[in-house]
Amino acid sequence: MSGSADPVEITRTLIRCPSVTPEEGGALSYLEGLLGAAGFRVHRVTLTGRDTPDVENLYARFGTRGPNLCFAGHTDVVPPGDPAHWRFPPFEAAIHGGLLYGRGAVDMKSGVAAFTAAALDLAAEHGDKLPGSISLLITGDEEGPAINGTEKLLRWLADRDERLDHCVLGEPSSRAALGDMVKIGRRGSLSGTLTVHGKQGHVGYPHLAENPIPGMARLITALTAEPLDRGSAHFQASNLEVVSVDVGNPAFNVIPAEAKARFNIRFNDLWMPDTLKAEVERRLKAAAGNEVRFSLAFEERSSDSFLTAPGDFVDLVVAAISDATGRTPELSTTGGTSDARFIKDYCPVVEFGLVGTSMHAVDEATPVEEIHALTRVYKDIATRYFDAFGR
Amino acid sequence: MSGSADPVEITRTLIRCPSVTPEEGGALSYLEGLLGAAGFRVHRVTLTGRDTPDVENLYARFGTRGPNLCFAGHTDVVPPGDPAHWRFPPFEAAIHGGLLYGRGAVDMKSGVAAFTAAALDLAAEHGDKLPGSISLLITGDEEGPAINGTEKLLRWLADRDERLDHCVLGEPSSRAALGDMVKIGRRGSLSGTLTVHGKQGHVGYPHLAENPIPGMARLITALTAEPLDRGSAHFQASNLEVVSVDVGNPAFNVIPAEAKARFNIRFNDLWMPDTLKAEVERRLKAAAGNEVRFSLAFEERSSDSFLTAPGDFVDLVVAAISDATGRTPELSTTGGTSDARFIKDYCPVVEFGLVGTSMHAVDEATPVEEIHALTRVYKDIATRYFDAFGR
Repeated sequence: MSGSADPVEITRTLIRCPSVTPEEGGALSYLEGLLGAAGFRVHRVTLTGRDTPDVENLYARFGTRGPNLCFAGHTDVVPPGDPAHWRFPPFEAAIHGGLLYGRGAVDMKSGVAAFTAAALDLAAEHGDKLPGSISLLITGDEEGPAINGTEKLLRWLADRDERLDHCVLGEPSSRAALGDMVKIGRRGSLSGTLTVHGKQGHVGYPHLAENPIPGMARLITALTAEPLDRGSAHFQASNLEVVSVDVGNPAFNVIPAEAKARFNIRFNDLWMPDTLKAEVERRLKAAAGNEVRFSLAFEERSSDSFLTAPGDFVDLVVAAISDATGRTPELSTTGGTSDARFIKDYCPVVEFGLVGTSMHAVDEATPVEEIHALTRVYKDIATRYFDAFGR
Repeated sequence: MSGSADPVEITRTLIRCPSVTPEEGGALSYLEGLLGAAGFRVHRVTLTGRDTPDVENLYARFGTRGPNLCFAGHTDVVPPGDPAHWRFPPFEAAIHGGLLYGRGAVDMKSGVAAFTAAALDLAAEHGDKLPGSISLLITGDEEGPAINGTEKLLRWLADRDERLDHCVLGEPSSRAALGDMVKIGRRGSLSGTLTVHGKQGHVGYPHLAENPIPGMARLITALTAEPLDRGSAHFQASNLEVVSVDVGNPAFNVIPAEAKARFNIRFNDLWMPDTLKAEVERRLKAAAGNEVRFSLAFEERSSDSFLTAPGDFVDLVVAAISDATGRTPELSTTGGTSDARFIKDYCPVVEFGLVGTSMHAVDEATPVEEIHALTRVYKDIATRYFDAFGR
């Protein structure tokens, strides 16, 4: 390979692969060719599950020794919506005014391209002298149900005694400018459905019926009036949102038989799903007394919170970001969930990537220059990592 | 006419007319023939409106002098549901074990038949010596939208200077035994929709969104926690029921933009629709403060309460009921709304009829003997009425 890999051209090739989740769209095959040619051992893993689409995934590794620094990400993207609403076609990868446009330009084909370019450079520079291994874990099921992706791929690796030592997830983590934020954790997520039971009847004869709606109002107030906590050392306060409340009664003269509310909790490291479920139940029982009859069901798939506490690994990531961008990133644990919730069970993980503003939106775009800067950050993280932990 | 009219046979003929609202089903034509032959002046009035079915109605009068005592009712019935669920076919008018079965046996073809038979008897007995007039006001739109029925028919009569002096509405008013209850009033009804406005967003970033659901819970509590009043001399307490609350958000990770609640109020003579609307608005504003943004819309068609205060007219109705049934009826203002809400704008009105237990249900049935007893009550009401008010 003459000169270094160009992350912008890799991004453009990936954007031209229409890998709308769960379609592979040619994206992983392209990366397989690129990495295989550079001496990476590449595994294509199709993962399957009941009631979910089959999904293609990729794991590639350069080097045989530990420690193994893994870059993780995904090539699937959310649908572009009506292409006519885009300034440039969403799968064309047009560059205009210094911006690269396209679905996945931010979330996260640029990130995948940047760490692929960084890894190719490192492999080219170090060859078999690399004091460790560098690997890439790329799924096609991050924007979908996330069932046949990272979680199962990590288990597949563990079953083969493939060990990851530290991981950088390339999700768009920056808030307003590249480098202003790195995520060292994420809150967990727990969802549930609350049903208040009443007795149907005619509004003219309320003593013969039992309206569940005032009781539902009381229980919603009990769930939302007091915060769950005040936050912890690295986390903001846990938060419960009632996202829907529904009765579906079309008549004005009928008292309905039941009311349902659905809620989601984003919680910090002060809680585990079980302690949180107990707290929700305690609040509901206290508010319900003997007057409100309710039932409560939690969704099966909750996700734990995770935290990679500040220390050597976080320090070197921060140093690399500061050197390349001139910004000292905030150590954040805000926002939604990510595949880091799976990775944290195997090794410490942090998330760093582009500014997320335009992700999932029409005219998703990123400055071309920031793709180069992100590549420099990833390469510097790897260099510092092998300096610190390599053997 | 030899002998007196048989109210049971009139009921059976009416039941055999499948006058499921808004269909006439032959019921009014049958009555037109019966009354016309006995010297009643019969008007068939088809009333029409935008977005509602055309409906046939009937007004018949015997006599030309005042006072005009009117019997009011309807021949339309609610649908029978699956006839296979009935013990006897719903439009066959089978008699078994002393009970007459069929749709409308209670609500209210028996009532119409009873006052028709009573009126025919009176006309036959008094001829042009009747010291007043007796009239029948019969609609085919009581079980439907009630737009092209009694309300418009009363206006049609008023436009022709046709005056009603007192009215007995033949709705099933008895609770457990014929004669145990007469309705001297009904509560009014007012419906509305409350919308709480928020701002949509992702549950992971609640500070960027504004969840309308806790505010909705607060407003529902404000509407329902305190009774509107404690009742009045002749009425039970006014009552507000929130009949539905809906958001319709299928996602667990999205904070919705708005929540809607629909409510209905049954109110007594302490309120008018306008004073009630003001009270609802006052409660909502007090609970909302500056924190909850809401909007409020009332349905166009509210109905006032009505009360025919105890006095000469109520006394003679009560006396007739007591004489015929041996029971002293309770003067009640309970239950849903009826066409009396329209009649009360023209003359004093009371409601008296059969026991309502099986109305609208499968196997709707009434004891044959009670149809005869009801006819005696109506005839006695008329006799006492002309004794008291006739000139």
